Amino acid sequence: MLMKPDQRAIEALVLMAMREDAPWGDLTSQALLPADLEISARLMAREEGILCGDDLFTTAMSMNAAVTVEFLKHDSNSFSAGDALARLTGPAQAILRAERVALNFMQRLCGIATLTAKYVAETVGTKARIVDTRKTTPGLRLLERYAVRCGGGYNHRFSLSDGVLAKDNHLAALKKKGDGELTSGLRQAFKLLPHTTHIEVEVDRLEQIEPVLAAGVDTIMLDNFSIDELRAGVKQVAGRALVEASGGISLDRVREIAATGVDLISVGALTHSVRSIDLGLDF
Amino acid sequence: MLMKPDQRAIEALVLMAMREDAPWGDLTSQALLPADLEISARLMAREEGILCGDDLFTTAMSMNAAVTVEFLKHDSNSFSAGDALARLTGPAQAILRAERVALNFMQRLCGIATLTAKYVAETVGTKARIVDTRKTTPGLRLLERYAVRCGGGYNHRFSLSDGVLAKDNHLAALKKKGDGELTSGLRQAFKLLPHTTHIEVEVDRLEQIEPVLAAGVDTIMLDNFSIDELRAGVKQVAGRALVEASGGISLDRVREIAATGVDLISVGALTHSVRSIDLGLDF
Amino acid sequence: MLMKPDQRAIEALVLMAMREDAPWGDLTSQALLPADLEISARLMAREEGILCGDDLFTTAMSMNAAVTVEFLKHDSNSFSAGDALARLTGPAQAILRAERVALNFMQRLCGIATLTAKYVAETVGTKARIVDTRKTTPGLRLLERYAVRCGGGYNHRFSLSDGVLAKDNHLAALKKKGDGELTSGLRQAFKLLPHTTHIEVEVDRLEQIEPVLAAGVDTIMLDNFSIDELRAGVKQVAGRALVEASGGISLDRVREIAATGVDLISVGALTHSVRSIDLGLDF
Amino acid sequence: MLMKPDQRAIEALVLMAMREDAPWGDLTSQALLPADLEISARLMAREEGILCGDDLFTTAMSMNAAVTVEFLKHDSNSFSAGDALARLTGPAQAILRAERVALNFMQRLCGIATLTAKYVAETVGTKARIVDTRKTTPGLRLLERYAVRCGGGYNHRFSLSDGVLAKDNHLAALKKKGDGELTSGLRQAFKLLPHTTHIEVEVDRLEQIEPVLAAGVDTIMLDNFSIDELRAGVKQVAGRALVEASGGISLDRVREIAATGVDLISVGALTHSVRSIDLGLDF
Amino acid sequence: MLMKPDQRAIEALVLMAMREDAPWGDLTSQALLPADLEISARLMAREEGILCGDDLFTTAMSMNAAVTVEFLKHDSNSFSAGDALARLTGPAQAILRAERVALNFMQRLCGIATLTAKYVAETVGTKARIVDTRKTTPGLRLLERYAVRCGGGYNHRFSLSDGVLAKDNHLAALKKKGDGELTSGLRQAFKLLPHTTHIEVEVDRLEQIEPVLAAGVDTIMLDNFSIDELRAGVKQVAGRALVEASGGISLDRVREIAATGVDLISVGALTHSVRSIDLGLDF
Amino acid sequence: MLMKPDQRAIEALVLMAMREDAPWGDLTSQALLPADLEISARLMAREEGILCGDDLFTTAMSMNAAVTVEFLKHDSNSFSAGDALARLTGPAQAILRAERVALNFMQRLCGIATLTAKYVAETVGTKARIVDTRKTTPGLRLLERYAVRCGGGYNHRFSLSDGVLAKDNHLAALKKKGDGELTSGLRQAFKLLPHTTHIEVEVDRLEQIEPVLAAGVDTIMLDNFSIDELRAGVKQVAGRALVEASGGISLDRVREIAATGVDLISVGALTHSVRSIDLGLDF
Repeated sequence: MLMKPDQRAIEALVLMAMREDAPWGDLTSQALLPADLEISARLMAREEGILCGDDLFTTAMSMNAAVTVEFLKHDSNSFSAGDALARLTGPAQAILRAERVALNFMQRLCGIATLTAKYVAETVGTKARIVDTRKTTPGLRLLERYAVRCGGGYNHRFSLSDGVLAKDNHLAALKKKGDGELTSGLRQAFKLLPHTTHIEVEVDRLEQIEPVLAAGVDTIMLDNFSIDELRAGVKQVAGRALVEASGGISLDRVREIAATGVDLISVGALTHSVRSIDLGLDF
Repeated sequence: MLMKPDQRAIEALVLMAMREDAPWGDLTSQALLPADLEISARLMAREEGILCGDDLFTTAMSMNAAVTVEFLKHDSNSFSAGDALARLTGPAQAILRAERVALNFMQRLCGIATLTAKYVAETVGTKARIVDTRKTTPGLRLLERYAVRCGGGYNHRFSLSDGVLAKDNHLAALKKKGDGELTSGLRQAFKLLPHTTHIEVEVDRLEQIEPVLAAGVDTIMLDNFSIDELRAGVKQVAGRALVEASGGISLDRVREIAATGVDLISVGALTHSVRSIDLGLDF
Repeated sequence: MLMKPDQRAIEALVLMAMREDAPWGDLTSQALLPADLEISARLMAREEGILCGDDLFTTAMSMNAAVTVEFLKHDSNSFSAGDALARLTGPAQAILRAERVALNFMQRLCGIATLTAKYVAETVGTKARIVDTRKTTPGLRLLERYAVRCGGGYNHRFSLSDGVLAKDNHLAALKKKGDGELTSGLRQAFKLLPHTTHIEVEVDRLEQIEPVLAAGVDTIMLDNFSIDELRAGVKQVAGRALVEASGGISLDRVREIAATGVDLISVGALTHSVRSIDLGLDF
Repeated sequence: MLMKPDQRAIEALVLMAMREDAPWGDLTSQALLPADLEISARLMAREEGILCGDDLFTTAMSMNAAVTVEFLKHDSNSFSAGDALARLTGPAQAILRAERVALNFMQRLCGIATLTAKYVAETVGTKARIVDTRKTTPGLRLLERYAVRCGGGYNHRFSLSDGVLAKDNHLAALKKKGDGELTSGLRQAFKLLPHTTHIEVEVDRLEQIEPVLAAGVDTIMLDNFSIDELRAGVKQVAGRALVEASGGISLDRVREIAATGVDLISVGALTHSVRSIDLGLDF
Repeated sequence: MLMKPDQRAIEALVLMAMREDAPWGDLTSQALLPADLEISARLMAREEGILCGDDLFTTAMSMNAAVTVEFLKHDSNSFSAGDALARLTGPAQAILRAERVALNFMQRLCGIATLTAKYVAETVGTKARIVDTRKTTPGLRLLERYAVRCGGGYNHRFSLSDGVLAKDNHLAALKKKGDGELTSGLRQAFKLLPHTTHIEVEVDRLEQIEPVLAAGVDTIMLDNFSIDELRAGVKQVAGRALVEASGGISLDRVREIAATGVDLISVGALTHSVRSIDLGLDF
Repeated sequence: MLMKPDQRAIEALVLMAMREDAPWGDLTSQALLPADLEISARLMAREEGILCGDDLFTTAMSMNAAVTVEFLKHDSNSFSAGDALARLTGPAQAILRAERVALNFMQRLCGIATLTAKYVAETVGTKARIVDTRKTTPGLRLLERYAVRCGGGYNHRFSLSDGVLAKDNHLAALKKKGDGELTSGLRQAFKLLPHTTHIEVEVDRLEQIEPVLAAGVDTIMLDNFSIDELRAGVKQVAGRALVEASGGISLDRVREIAATGVDLISVGALTHSVRSIDLGLDF
């Protein structure tokens, strides 16, 4: 149950990309290829990874003509170098025109899913979830969050509008308001929020945990804590809130962090530094 | 002379990203920060790199309120870890709301500019240009091409609509048309193109060079050639067209490739696998 | 602290309404009024109510020309019949053209705020919040939720995307899946959700409360319960989740419902049946 | 012959509402319902009314998946509490996702049609038409005017662009222009209008009727006239123009007003204060 | 009193044209002109005509930078070959980028205004209005109707939505409906229309005039009538409706047609075959 | 091989035009025609010409209902007065609603194709291409360039973004930069351009040819040269670049110009002054 993104949202993104990549047609294919030439092709993996983007690829390919796409692997499946991922048949002009757009999306999404899966693999046997952040590519958040799910990760809040995450700068402002005490300041601020709002507060040191918990929060984020501090933090929170580890999470540290007992590990790198997976069409 | 992207295009992209990141407001800042709280902040580099995105950052910050931004470095300047890149002052709510959007764009663009500059540095003393490809992030091509220029690289065609690049699949289709001879097939196809169209054809082996040149092309792309083959190709073309090396170009091979005498080296990795540069706001 | 809606969102809605109401100009004003005629006017309340829409009114008025608007009352303030709410000065053509659009928005929003305030007044002395529902006017949800806040009410989830609310039809489907037991079915379904998701489940009878609570929910909705049943439900939940009363809430029953100890009372009528407050411009 | 609204306009409105109500999916249905679960449902009337919105409901339901909708009653038909209005079958996820959007539109439109029908019933036996005003919900005018027609009412001008309606403020401006005489001022102003423009002028007292008629108008609006004044006005106009009664028209006064012999009775309340008709889906 | 088109509509059209003409910048100006180069220029008439488009020209020029435009002639003024129409000053890059877009609009609009003025000049001394048709350039109707007004002409209905014009095909359908008699068929059809609808019916021969008039129409169109028939038609209508001459109106026949006593002469050529007026920028 | 415009671009343009021409329905057809009336019609040529717009016409006709269109002639075919161009069958309401939009587009496009063909006919036996300019109707450039191709002409650059064309004003600025020498100034400016950029420079007199050629240009434009000068210019360029004749090209001079040996003749009149071809529907 991957909660696929809305098909209409996919179509809008593909159309936007098509307009960007061919604002007034594909000179090469229109000049060189007869309009009635039909071809077959296979979407091939040039390296191993996790699949993400099957619907999107099909949408791109069939946007301008009757192209048939049959996927042999599906979103969240793993694949190896040399695997055929899909078979497609249709007008050569349409397939070549859509090729780059379809691959540009899919290679990035597979990159995210594949990297996520590596982080997730490191947390096996712990209760820690790998979660994404808002460090996504502008315009593609919907897709990139889906890619995280394809890789076995979980989503954090979607945007600034659907969850509270108070960071150091927000807390600093509370003091400037002259509120004095952190707990009462937070409690006062949270009072007007919808009851459906998940409230998370970031702390920089162990001493902040108690006053923040006292304000009634759902998740407490331990930012840039050492392994020992994380362990101490988890112990101190003692189940009164979820605990999220954040800040400079890397693949070689994540297992150690997961072992501290945190509930969530947020990894900006899942989406802010995507290495595309090498895919290509073979004709 | 960097040919900055159009300010209206920047505004449209920033607005799109703002809507994605805060479709109905910033719960945290609106709950915790007084509307009249003014703050100052600095945009800091956490690692070295090449700057790209000054106008975009300013646009994002000043979109929702009167935020003043003064850049201390400018697009295409290099910076070191710890450098202050800009100073900004304005309402805390507006700055914190725009922070993630502004950084999401800018960190990617700096990543592209910085990587490009590394490739360009390897070509010093040769005539080879580092050029981008269409392997850009859907929706952000305008910005990413600009980032390549900030890094000292050059742009290839923008899209399928403003230049011909015939690849193996196109050439294969010529044969299916029964055109028989490659040269006449290409010449026939090019006849209807606008005279302003730059025509490039990709070849896979040295034997294709002569028939392609005979069709009258502006650039010949040597795809996945070895260093020796590249050198032979350049010699054979002998200035009758530009020569572009393409396919699997990596940072550790690029100097050797540039030394073969090619005119252009296209590098998909400049944009298809962006590692964000670490930037942040200090308050 | 009312968390005003985003100014850009307001502008987009006003522009949409202006295009609807004057797709190719205002024949009457352009024919009858000299372009340089300046007038002053006052926005008058013809009946009592709660104000909502000050920024929106100003935006509509100043969209097409330099109209100055000064509000004498502000959003969430109460007003009486005969009160002047704002003073405005500017070109007659612009003011008359914007008049109907500005009032169409504002009269509805004041209607919602005023009705909400009546419900809220009935809950004084209890802990119950009056909350809105998704029964809003298509396209105007952002504004109508704001109007509820102006009236002293609170917001529920914004949309299907930012909170779970499982109703009878959803629970019925769990059975069709052959999941057998309700608790495990729900728990299974909730596992993949972001940890930030507020989870609410609707129950029709007291017997469902325990299995639902056992699945780990944040709010339990008691749908169409009698006063006695509500009281029993609150007692049974005993603080293990928030309790929401829902279904056929009317102004004459709400005090009694609030007194049962529920946390939330959701009222569809706040937005699904808006009686506009009578406002007008006096020149 | 109801002149149904354009199907493309309906689609655009439904899509807008869908995006508002589920910007990134329906968490509840996607989490709880299997993607392949098909259900049947009936659209039920919980109270009596006049139907409006059959095409719109079908459009909403079938927007995201193959949902079959068969209406048992049609637009402008009356229905009773307990009537099944439509039968629908399709994927549970799609039906539950569209349910609120479809009902939010339809309940409002039925509310308008039903209220209109009540006003129309009071005019039986007279020549008076019940007509709408521009006091419609921003963005929904096209639909709300259609609902008025479904209820047996008639439409007034669509917007400021397709008809002249000069009110007191316009007439006051004529004096400020120093035009002196009302008749010549109006005549002068109307000269440049397209010959297709319907010209209506509002008067506040009987003395204004003659000078306004002398300027050549198609309709004369008697604003806030007493019953006696209306009767006198109709007599004075004597068929030289249509006569519209306007201002504070209520359901208990409308029969009396219609009996005065006016041609048109414009009722802002038809659209400015809509009480939704209670409809629901039974599964 | 020209009823200028809405400034926001102008901006939207200019922006659309700018995107079309420079989707990713102006290579020539950005490469050749320093960003800080300021220039002055004059908008010159290379032939005589009637001005239309002053606001639009200013909007185009100042869209991307601070360009000052001062018009020496104004919309609806006549000009001679060699006249300076406007002076402008600003950044060279912005002016050269906007030049073609600004002229493309303005030359067409001046072409329409100028041609209209020629037709209008032929009707001097008669009561006939020269009116436009719906044969406008897709997307530019708002502007082209304004150009007709600048030339002294008048507008017909804007669109299919704001006026009835029944042509032979519509009348033929009435018979297929089995309505038998033309008068009753029309009357029946018109009954449901808003009272603000101007009703016009086209007739092909004199015998149709009486039955059409009997149905109650506002304008009767005499389509492709000879001069004698027009005169007879005017006489027969005898002021019971406006009379419009239509079909193959040319500049050399229009005076004769106007002399027949018709009220309206609709000329498709005003907008369907525009010869641009030669304008240019002198630097 | 005409390189037809993208079907999605056509749909967007048709939809825009439909909204303009019937923002809230077609009053006449909805009032007079039964919704279930099916009719047949033929698209007839009232004068001779070259066809352009078959896909567009079909798109317009079938946008709102199932209308079948069969074209008897195809784009770029010539036709005579009286020829039936297409047969169509479908609902009368849909056909009459789309008629004007479909014809407004098609008559203009046929006008351009027909005029282009006349210019092309004059160049038979020479190597000169007739090419278009950027003097197109705002918003319709994609279609108008296609019409030029249908008439046997060729396209120039699409926009400011995909080709360099330096005119006198640009060259003048080079001097203001203090660059002194023209050749080095141009060479410097061109250095940063993508290698795919076609570079064209306009010269006003023969003396400029050598310094411009020395800068390395692809095409040299001889602006407003006499026939003798053109011949001299061609001789001087001697194949080192393409030669384009431009400025005041008329149908009666074009053969003489083509005979001078120029490669390209750009004709603004192809698109800036379109005379619509007379087409109509016969029912």
